[in-house]
Amino acid sequence: MLANTVTGPSDFVARALAGERVPLARAISLIENESPEAVAVLDACFARTGKAFRIGITGPPGAGKSTLVTRLAQEYRRRGETVGIVAVDPTSPFSGGALLGDRVRMAELAGDDGIFIRSMATRGSLGGLAVHTSQACDVLDAAGFTRILIETVGVGQSELEVAQTADSTAVVLVPESGDGIQAMKAGLMEIGDLFVINKADREGAERAAYAIHTALDLRMPAGGWTPPVLSTVASQGTGVEELVDRFEEHLIHLQGHSGLEKRRRRRIEQHLEELLRARLWQDSRARIGDDVWQRGVDKLVSREWTPHRAAAELAEAARTT
Amino acid sequence: MLANTVTGPSDFVARALAGERVPLARAISLIENESPEAVAVLDACFARTGKAFRIGITGPPGAGKSTLVTRLAQEYRRRGETVGIVAVDPTSPFSGGALLGDRVRMAELAGDDGIFIRSMATRGSLGGLAVHTSQACDVLDAAGFTRILIETVGVGQSELEVAQTADSTAVVLVPESGDGIQAMKAGLMEIGDLFVINKADREGAERAAYAIHTALDLRMPAGGWTPPVLSTVASQGTGVEELVDRFEEHLIHLQGHSGLEKRRRRRIEQHLEELLRARLWQDSRARIGDDVWQRGVDKLVSREWTPHRAAAELAEAARTT
Repeated sequence: MLANTVTGPSDFVARALAGERVPLARAISLIENESPEAVAVLDACFARTGKAFRIGITGPPGAGKSTLVTRLAQEYRRRGETVGIVAVDPTSPFSGGALLGDRVRMAELAGDDGIFIRSMATRGSLGGLAVHTSQACDVLDAAGFTRILIETVGVGQSELEVAQTADSTAVVLVPESGDGIQAMKAGLMEIGDLFVINKADREGAERAAYAIHTALDLRMPAGGWTPPVLSTVASQGTGVEELVDRFEEHLIHLQGHSGLEKRRRRRIEQHLEELLRARLWQDSRARIGDDVWQRGVDKLVSREWTPHRAAAELAEAARTT
Repeated sequence: MLANTVTGPSDFVARALAGERVPLARAISLIENESPEAVAVLDACFARTGKAFRIGITGPPGAGKSTLVTRLAQEYRRRGETVGIVAVDPTSPFSGGALLGDRVRMAELAGDDGIFIRSMATRGSLGGLAVHTSQACDVLDAAGFTRILIETVGVGQSELEVAQTADSTAVVLVPESGDGIQAMKAGLMEIGDLFVINKADREGAERAAYAIHTALDLRMPAGGWTPPVLSTVASQGTGVEELVDRFEEHLIHLQGHSGLEKRRRRRIEQHLEELLRARLWQDSRARIGDDVWQRGVDKLVSREWTPHRAAAELAEAARTT
């Protein structure tokens, strides 16, 4: 009985790191809620990170990402890997419904101890989604999951930042996306290491693949990797094995060209920047104090100061207090 | 001939403030590109801001926001107002195509000197979309435009922040949105001062209106304003007059309850926070210097430091340098 009770903080972190589900879920909740205890959790995890292969799955709403992630997890299980899934529910108020359904569908993975699923729907102040997602992945990484799938709807800047926390990212499209690919911004074509046309049994799949290839031809070759364009029908499992093969191929490629090292260093550097930005702001705001802050706002409202003047004055106040 | 040439910076700002189109466009481009000259432009504008009524129009892709904004601008012109339009192209790579079409459609407003249209598609480092949009509105406000329409696709956190820079915000939906309204996150229902069901000649408009009313009943009443739910068919101009009436009603309501003052103070405060955050980071990063920074990253990569330790050490380095 006692073994099932979550007790002191160090005990629960140890149990989370051992892969126990309830402490694991609690650890991620602390991160999501920006609880003061999250720092201790993350500090305990960090030394054990760096082993998992982090895979990003992004694409427009309705591309079937959630089903694809489910199939990928199953295929990875078949190959003996353990799988953490972090599904990022974007802060978009318009897609809440669809994602809810997706979570339900993922229930078919429940009951397998080698799979842990977590959805994140945070809009905290500490740097937002990308930071929390990356931290949740750190916890799963430290807990020994060998493959981490990060599912995110590729709309909006913050969601693209989430995709960039992965080692390898697949952009998932549908045949109907074909016509729009020319109009897509460079950002999307640049973040994809693999491209997947899901629901490829529908009309237009070949045209969509052709459009992606054309768009990729315009891209600068990076590190000797040519992004493959794959076809899947995730609902039937078609093409999933090959997709996993290609992810693993990309991992080996990255390891061989020190690309993995570079990507991870960049990721760590970005994470550090976000943490430092948040800390600088919190420290300075506390040092400025409410009175001085509100007087600064007063001078802006009265147009006595310009915004840049106010920012300069308050930065100085923070420094000299 | 000379009058058409953009010359020195102070001259061009004066001409932008007089509403001349080329200098106005240049002023906003400087902001968008985070050019060093942007500070002088914004400083020159700020004392003259606070007169325009800023109206946000947000909603999902395909709701017909762009057509509605076009009709709103025309109706406002009929009423003797001058209109600035800031259309925020979200950084989403997936909706590039549609927005491109929208811009083309807006061409029907061209040729009217009382209308200035600008689309923003920025992902700069200085705080992003919300800051730049708010600054572009400041320029148009200072240039004497009396109504500023801010059009933004309501997906993603940064886009919602854009909507919050307005004095009054309309959330635009379509009849098909009806079923999804229950699933919508609180965020959207909370930012709407008015709700518009556009394309209301399609089936389901009444059900959608009912769903919005039901969702609004759950919302805390704020400042004595009950958000009206309107129906429009923007492509035919139906309902646009009433929508303008309601926006003006809301403006008068806000003025009467010091709500406008409060909203604007909050907006100014948020803007100050964003500027100060950016300044603190830039100052600190410069003081830390590349060597110390890279050594910090090294210690993270080797797991000698945790991210929080690294952030603390570097914050200290910035303070004591």
